[in-house]
Amino acid sequence: MTTTFDRALKVKFGWCDPAGIMFFPRYFELANDTLEAWFSGPLGVSFRVLHEDMKLSVPTRRFEADFLAPSRLDDWLDINLRLEKLGTTSATVIQAVTCGGQARFRGRQIIVLTDGGTLTPAPWPDALRRKMEPFVEAA
Amino acid sequence: MTTTFDRALKVKFGWCDPAGIMFFPRYFELANDTLEAWFSGPLGVSFRVLHEDMKLSVPTRRFEADFLAPSRLDDWLDINLRLEKLGTTSATVIQAVTCGGQARFRGRQIIVLTDGGTLTPAPWPDALRRKMEPFVEAA
Amino acid sequence: MTTTFDRALKVKFGWCDPAGIMFFPRYFELANDTLEAWFSGPLGVSFRVLHEDMKLSVPTRRFEADFLAPSRLDDWLDINLRLEKLGTTSATVIQAVTCGGQARFRGRQIIVLTDGGTLTPAPWPDALRRKMEPFVEAA
Amino acid sequence: MTTTFDRALKVKFGWCDPAGIMFFPRYFELANDTLEAWFSGPLGVSFRVLHEDMKLSVPTRRFEADFLAPSRLDDWLDINLRLEKLGTTSATVIQAVTCGGQARFRGRQIIVLTDGGTLTPAPWPDALRRKMEPFVEAA
Repeated sequence: MTTTFDRALKVKFGWCDPAGIMFFPRYFELANDTLEAWFSGPLGVSFRVLHEDMKLSVPTRRFEADFLAPSRLDDWLDINLRLEKLGTTSATVIQAVTCGGQARFRGRQIIVLTDGGTLTPAPWPDALRRKMEPFVEAA
Repeated sequence: MTTTFDRALKVKFGWCDPAGIMFFPRYFELANDTLEAWFSGPLGVSFRVLHEDMKLSVPTRRFEADFLAPSRLDDWLDINLRLEKLGTTSATVIQAVTCGGQARFRGRQIIVLTDGGTLTPAPWPDALRRKMEPFVEAA
Repeated sequence: MTTTFDRALKVKFGWCDPAGIMFFPRYFELANDTLEAWFSGPLGVSFRVLHEDMKLSVPTRRFEADFLAPSRLDDWLDINLRLEKLGTTSATVIQAVTCGGQARFRGRQIIVLTDGGTLTPAPWPDALRRKMEPFVEAA
Repeated sequence: MTTTFDRALKVKFGWCDPAGIMFFPRYFELANDTLEAWFSGPLGVSFRVLHEDMKLSVPTRRFEADFLAPSRLDDWLDINLRLEKLGTTSATVIQAVTCGGQARFRGRQIIVLTDGGTLTPAPWPDALRRKMEPFVEAA
């Protein structure tokens, strides 16, 4: 069984453009916010702890996004995060966003754990990796 | 010869995160801003005219982004926009962002011309298509 | 007794600047978001209903903001919204933001109910006014 | 004679809300951007130099903003920055934004020069103060 990280958020006024739909760059802010909530929640490592105490960061190396249908003000978005792959120093994060069952957005984001000092990739610490593993999609 | 749309912008304070580097969602705002500048400049159709007068929009269908090296406060970014492909109702826009010759970001964005009333794809008007054609990459 | 609208939110990575503190314009986005949550929650009129169904809007006429102490990544902000004054067509909204009891931000925002067609001030509808009245500060 | 720092910027698509007008928090981002351009331009101290080399920052202590008329997509905004007052460690910055002569926004922002180490107010360095003085309004 694959564990997923699920949340629901309502589309805010400030996210929408003059065409009345969610401005596409806002999806990436939302994706980062969901990633941050996943780290501080299920993974037990907030971005503050990650950056300031552990001196690590998780920069994005690649992001593939599909915008499948427009979202409008006040729509409730159901967000579902899981991992396609967990590498030694990287992870491929999948975020599926739906509204009432309709697919709205799909993100595939490759993040790389990076040492804040040397700026080189670092292996996931064991404790963190063990918390990430249940989110990897079953084959 | 392929024509490109080129501009240079400096990384602003508000674009950078606590790690001191450009927050990745800001690249998508920048990409949209450059697309808007290309429309209102070389293509001669501002987003106001496109949306309000022509009742058209150019929603993004897919965006593939590679983050190749971090950008920092005050870095001058050289942005180069061209088309990989110009379809009947869509276009594949390439944006390469460099700093002092170092590759920082590469975006590949599929936009679709959309009728504001029916929300269905619409063919590029001839006058607009003619202005877009020089930006298509030579084979 | 004055009723207040209270919520708590955590300072996100994307809200913070390279100095590691919350970038001041983000407080205004937060203030608007809280206003929106107050409308859709206790007042029972979401911004979608307000704008699309009732053809009204609540533009800001004036905003006075005091930044009392810096906020950092992961700080829990306690937000408290109440009204200083409820006029015929306007309202003066007070938002006090604290963290662990320390004052961080105080906003005093004058909003004006505006008819979307004529763009002129409109009196608060009775049903809406009755729901706003408990939030006016006791003299 | 008072010197002013003047610039003109066009209202972008991403700054506008579903009501088709500039979302009010964007004015504060614009104000910060103009302050940053004034520092790196006429004052000769970029925010990178200020923060990273000089270990100083200029947090905002208070911001009073009047929204005088709505701005729309593609409007050219004329921005005029000057100082109302230059204190030992602080400055009161006035930003007037107009469009075709019509007043749109007026900001009055108190910034305080702050030592990055002690987080206490610091006096303006003489060289910087001399460059700021011409921008103080004549009595």
